[in-house]
Amino acid sequence: MQMARKVGVVGLGHVGTAVANYLLFNGFTDELVLIDTNEKKLNAEATDFADAMANLNAHTKITVNDYQALKDADVVISALGNIGLQKDNKKHDRFVELAFNQQAAKEVGTKVKEAGFNGVFVSISNPCDVITALYQKFTGLPTDQVIGTGTLLDSARMKKAVAEVLQVDPRSVSGYNLGEHGNSQFTAWSTVQVFDQPITKLADQNSALNLNDLSEKVRAGGYTVYHGKHYTNYGIAAAAVHLTNAILSDSHEELPASYYHPEYETYVSSPIIVGKKGVVKEIKLDLTADERDKFAESAKYIKERFEKAYAELTA
Amino acid sequence: MQMARKVGVVGLGHVGTAVANYLLFNGFTDELVLIDTNEKKLNAEATDFADAMANLNAHTKITVNDYQALKDADVVISALGNIGLQKDNKKHDRFVELAFNQQAAKEVGTKVKEAGFNGVFVSISNPCDVITALYQKFTGLPTDQVIGTGTLLDSARMKKAVAEVLQVDPRSVSGYNLGEHGNSQFTAWSTVQVFDQPITKLADQNSALNLNDLSEKVRAGGYTVYHGKHYTNYGIAAAAVHLTNAILSDSHEELPASYYHPEYETYVSSPIIVGKKGVVKEIKLDLTADERDKFAESAKYIKERFEKAYAELTA
Amino acid sequence: MQMARKVGVVGLGHVGTAVANYLLFNGFTDELVLIDTNEKKLNAEATDFADAMANLNAHTKITVNDYQALKDADVVISALGNIGLQKDNKKHDRFVELAFNQQAAKEVGTKVKEAGFNGVFVSISNPCDVITALYQKFTGLPTDQVIGTGTLLDSARMKKAVAEVLQVDPRSVSGYNLGEHGNSQFTAWSTVQVFDQPITKLADQNSALNLNDLSEKVRAGGYTVYHGKHYTNYGIAAAAVHLTNAILSDSHEELPASYYHPEYETYVSSPIIVGKKGVVKEIKLDLTADERDKFAESAKYIKERFEKAYAELTA
Amino acid sequence: MQMARKVGVVGLGHVGTAVANYLLFNGFTDELVLIDTNEKKLNAEATDFADAMANLNAHTKITVNDYQALKDADVVISALGNIGLQKDNKKHDRFVELAFNQQAAKEVGTKVKEAGFNGVFVSISNPCDVITALYQKFTGLPTDQVIGTGTLLDSARMKKAVAEVLQVDPRSVSGYNLGEHGNSQFTAWSTVQVFDQPITKLADQNSALNLNDLSEKVRAGGYTVYHGKHYTNYGIAAAAVHLTNAILSDSHEELPASYYHPEYETYVSSPIIVGKKGVVKEIKLDLTADERDKFAESAKYIKERFEKAYAELTA
Repeated sequence: MQMARKVGVVGLGHVGTAVANYLLFNGFTDELVLIDTNEKKLNAEATDFADAMANLNAHTKITVNDYQALKDADVVISALGNIGLQKDNKKHDRFVELAFNQQAAKEVGTKVKEAGFNGVFVSISNPCDVITALYQKFTGLPTDQVIGTGTLLDSARMKKAVAEVLQVDPRSVSGYNLGEHGNSQFTAWSTVQVFDQPITKLADQNSALNLNDLSEKVRAGGYTVYHGKHYTNYGIAAAAVHLTNAILSDSHEELPASYYHPEYETYVSSPIIVGKKGVVKEIKLDLTADERDKFAESAKYIKERFEKAYAELTA
Repeated sequence: MQMARKVGVVGLGHVGTAVANYLLFNGFTDELVLIDTNEKKLNAEATDFADAMANLNAHTKITVNDYQALKDADVVISALGNIGLQKDNKKHDRFVELAFNQQAAKEVGTKVKEAGFNGVFVSISNPCDVITALYQKFTGLPTDQVIGTGTLLDSARMKKAVAEVLQVDPRSVSGYNLGEHGNSQFTAWSTVQVFDQPITKLADQNSALNLNDLSEKVRAGGYTVYHGKHYTNYGIAAAAVHLTNAILSDSHEELPASYYHPEYETYVSSPIIVGKKGVVKEIKLDLTADERDKFAESAKYIKERFEKAYAELTA
Repeated sequence: MQMARKVGVVGLGHVGTAVANYLLFNGFTDELVLIDTNEKKLNAEATDFADAMANLNAHTKITVNDYQALKDADVVISALGNIGLQKDNKKHDRFVELAFNQQAAKEVGTKVKEAGFNGVFVSISNPCDVITALYQKFTGLPTDQVIGTGTLLDSARMKKAVAEVLQVDPRSVSGYNLGEHGNSQFTAWSTVQVFDQPITKLADQNSALNLNDLSEKVRAGGYTVYHGKHYTNYGIAAAAVHLTNAILSDSHEELPASYYHPEYETYVSSPIIVGKKGVVKEIKLDLTADERDKFAESAKYIKERFEKAYAELTA
Repeated sequence: MQMARKVGVVGLGHVGTAVANYLLFNGFTDELVLIDTNEKKLNAEATDFADAMANLNAHTKITVNDYQALKDADVVISALGNIGLQKDNKKHDRFVELAFNQQAAKEVGTKVKEAGFNGVFVSISNPCDVITALYQKFTGLPTDQVIGTGTLLDSARMKKAVAEVLQVDPRSVSGYNLGEHGNSQFTAWSTVQVFDQPITKLADQNSALNLNDLSEKVRAGGYTVYHGKHYTNYGIAAAAVHLTNAILSDSHEELPASYYHPEYETYVSSPIIVGKKGVVKEIKLDLTADERDKFAESAKYIKERFEKAYAELTA
C-alpha cells in the first residue's frame, strides 16, 4: 500500500524550501521527500516544517535524504542551485550556475534513476532548459516525463504586468512567454488576450498599454526581485506547484513549460497539456514570423549549450 | 464598502515573508498590507508575491508601505526583527533583539495607532512577551486586542516531540507550553494528554517516553533550526497564521498565546479562547505547584524586562 | 468590529443548501446568514451544518432567519425556488417558476433593502435574468451591485462538453455562453478557444468536434441532470460560489454573468470584470452577426417578461 | 502509473452525493469512482458534478459504475441506504434499513472483493456497526482495513452541543460518544474536556451545563435534522471525509470510529489512531463503571444483530 501522493524536492535552498512550504502548508501532497547535500541545513528546514505541523490543517509525512523513497514518488522536483553564484551574478545570466548545476544534475539524475523513479520529473534549476535536458538524459526517463518550469514563471510575470495596467485579475489574462527561461525568452504577444480581445488590438487603442515597455518590464521582472532580495523564490514556487498539481491530478490543463521539441531537438518552452504522464499533448501555436524566429533562435541557443554541457559530463 | 478580510504584516524578514506567503498562497486574506523600512527588500518581496498570482487559486490585493491602509484591517501582525543580531546570538537568547525591537515597537505601534487601527494586533517579534506588552502601550489598544504568539510555537514543538515518540499526529496531542516565549518557558506536563491519557501516566509505563528528555528537546527545538539555517520561520509562521485565522473567523478556538494576565501584571503565555475581539476568555489551568512556580517566575522575568524597556522608551 | 467575510443565502432548497455547503466546508466565508420561510427545514439544514463543524478545517458562524444580519453582509445570494413547480415542469421551461419567484423576489428584495444591505446581491433563482432584474428594483441597489449567475453555468457546461471531446481540463477551454439563462441561451462559438485555437478552426479539422451537436448537448445539459434527479444543484452552486469569491476578494476576474446592459435596457448574460462593487467593467465581444442577433433576441425576450412581471408586482 | 489519490463512493443518495461533493469541491481526491444501481440518478449526479468542474480550483477525474476501477483505490466509502425506508421510520430506528442494507452490503462487498480492492473500506450505511461488520466479511479484508464512521458523527454532535452552551469552537471540545451508532450510543462524559477541565467538574460549577440535558440533546440531534428534511447528510459527510483524509494522508490522527474489538467480538465505536492501513492503534479509555456497562451492552446489541444478519446472508 503506497502513500496516496508522494513528491520529492531535491535542493532545499530558497526555491526548494518555498516549494516544499507551499506543498506542505496547503496539503498538496501526502508524503514529501526532502533531499539536500547540506545535511545541517536540510535537517533545520525539516525540523522547522515539523514544528508547523500541529498548527496546519493537513498532515504530511516528511522523509529526509532518502533517494530510495523516490522510487514510488509521483513527482520529483529539482530546485537545486548555488546561491553564492547567484549573488555574484552581475549580468543577470542564469548560465552562471551552469557549471555547478550541470554536475549536480548528473549526480541527482543518476541517483533518481538508481532509485527506480518512474513518475514525472520537474526541474526548476537554472539554466532551466539545459538542466532539464540533462536530467532527462541522466534519469533515463522518457522525454514526456521530464519537464522544466521554463516560461511558466515568465508567463505569470507577463500576466501580472498586463493585469496591473488594465486592472484585471492576472488569471484573466491568457497567453504565453516562450523560448528559453533566460535572456532570450520573449512574450508572444500574438497569443495574449485580455477582455476577450487580442492585446495587440487593445494596445492600438490604449496608449497606456505599450507592449514594448511591457516586454521589457516582464524580462526585467526577475531582476527587481533579485536586486531587492538576492534571489527569487515565491513566484517560481507557485509556478512549480501549479505544474505539480496538474500532474498529480492528471488535470490535462494547458500550461507553458519546457519540454522536448523533436523538431528543434531541444528542450524549450511552449504550451503543453499536462497530465500524470507529464506531457500529454503539444500545443501548436500560430505565431507570427518574428515570434517563430525568436523561438527558433532561443531553441538553438539552448541546444548548443546543452550539447556542450552533456559532452563535458559524458567525456 | 471595505475589503472582506484585511491583514497587515509589519517586517518582511524571514518570518514576515513566511507569514505573508502562507496567507497569500492559501487565500487566507483578501487584502494584505506589507510594511518594511527596507523599501528595496519590501518591493522585491511584493513583486515576487505578485509574480505568483497567476498561478494561485485565490486572489489577494497587495498594498505596500501604507500605514493608512491599516485603519480598517482586521489583524496587524508584527514580524519585525534584526537578522544581524540573531546571527551573532551565541547564547540563544531572544533578548539580544530587545534594544532594536523595543525601539521599532514604539515606532510601529505609534504609527498603527495614528492610522486608527482597531482590530487585533498579533506580535511575533522577540522577545515576544516584552515586545507584545510594548505594542499594547504604543498602539493604545485594549489589552484584549493585543496578543503575542508566545508559546503557541513552543506548544507545537512539544506536540511534535511527543508525536514522534508515540507515532501519532501532533494534532492529536493536547496540552501546553507556558510562560515566556524564551528560555524560561516550560512544558506543563500536567496539561498534556495523548491517547486519552495524561502523558505523566503513559511515561510511567513507557520508558521510551522520558519527559525530562522531551522537555529538553522542546526547549532546544528552535536551536536545531537556528543552527542549521540561522533563523526559524516556518514553524512560527504556521503558529501566527493559525492565531490570525481564529481571529478572522471569530472561531473561539482554545490556543496558548501571550496575553495580559492582570494577576501577574504582565504579558505571558497560557491558553485563551480567541475570537474577533482577540482574547475572548482566559483559561484557568489546574497546574501543579511546581508549574505554578515556574509560571510565576517566568511572568516576573518578563514584567521586569518590560518595565525597564518601557521606562527607557518613555524617558 | 464587523465579521471579516459575511454572506447571506436566501432559500435553502437543493440549490441554496449546496451553495451554503460549499461556502462552509471550504471556509469561504466567516459568517453565513441562512434565510428560508420554511423554518423547520431551515433549522434542520442549519443543525446538519452545525453537526459538521467539529470535523471541518475552518470555522464559520451560522446565523438563521435574521434579515437584520444582512445589513453588513458582503454578498447576499438568492437561491429560492419552488421544487414542486420544477418537478411538474414537462417543457423544461425555467419560466414555470416565475409567478412564484417574482412574488418571492419582491418580498425578499424589500426585506433586504429594509435591512440596509449595501453589498453585492447575486441571484440564482429562475428565470434568472428576470428575477435578477426584479431584485435590482426591490433592493434599490445600483445595477452594478446586482448580478445574476446567468450563463456562468451554461458556459461551464460548454467547457465540459468541449473538454470531454478533446480530453482537456475544462478550465483550459475559454469562451462563453451568452444571453438568457434559459431556452434562448446559446454558445458564442466565435469566443471559444482551446489549444490556443479558435474552436471553429479546430472543428473544421476534426470531424469528432461537431459544434451543432455540442450546442445541443450544452443546451440539454441541465435536462440530463434534471431528469435523473429532479433538480440541478452542484453545477450551479460551483458557479455561484465562484462569482461570490471573485466579489469577496475583489479579484477583477472575467466571468460571464447576468448584468444590466443599458443598450438593451435589460439584464442578460455576457462577460464582466467582477469585483467587490459587483460589475467593475463590461466586456465588449466581437460577435458574429448571427450571434449578435441571437443575443438581441434573448435580451428582448427577457426585457418583455421582466416588464410584465414588474408591472404585475407594482400594480 | 496509478492515480495519486483514488476514492470510491458506493451509493449516491443524499449522503453519498454530499460525501462526493465535499471530496470534489475541496480537491480531496484525484480520482473519484461513483457507483449506484440507479444509473439514471448516478449519471445525473455525475453530470451535475462535471458541470461544476470549470468553476472549481482543483481537478478530479470522475469514473462511473466501474467496480474494476476500485482495484487500486485508496479508500472505498459505502453510503448506500434506502430513503424510502428512512422516510417511513417513525421510531427513529436505524435498523429499519437493515434488511435492505444487509443484502446490499453482501452484493457490494462481494463486488469490491472481486475487484481486488486492498485499501481501506469506510462504511456509513445504517445500522452502521452491523453493516460495517458485514462488509468486513464480504470484502474479505482484514478487520483493520474496514472501519465504520460510527460515533464520529455523534461525537461531533456532542462537541457542538457543549460548544453552544459554553461559547467555544466545537473543535476545542475533546471527548467521545461511544458504542453503537444508534439508540444505544452514549456520551462518555468522563472523556469530555473543555477549557482544560473535565466537563463533569465544569457542570458541577455551572448550572447552565446540565449533562443529562446535553446527552438527550446529542441523542436527539439527528432527529431534529431528520424531522426537518427527512434525512441527514452534511454532518455525516464531514465525518466520513475527515476519516478518509486521515487515511489518505496516513495522519495517525485520533478519531472515534466503529472498528472490530476482539474482546467484544464485534464492531463498535471507540477511539482509534487512523492511518493508511486503517486502524493503526486502539485507544484504551479509562471509563467509569457505568460507561463500561453501557459500552458492553451496546456491543452485545450489535453483535447479536450482526450474527443474525450474517446467518441470514450465508444461509
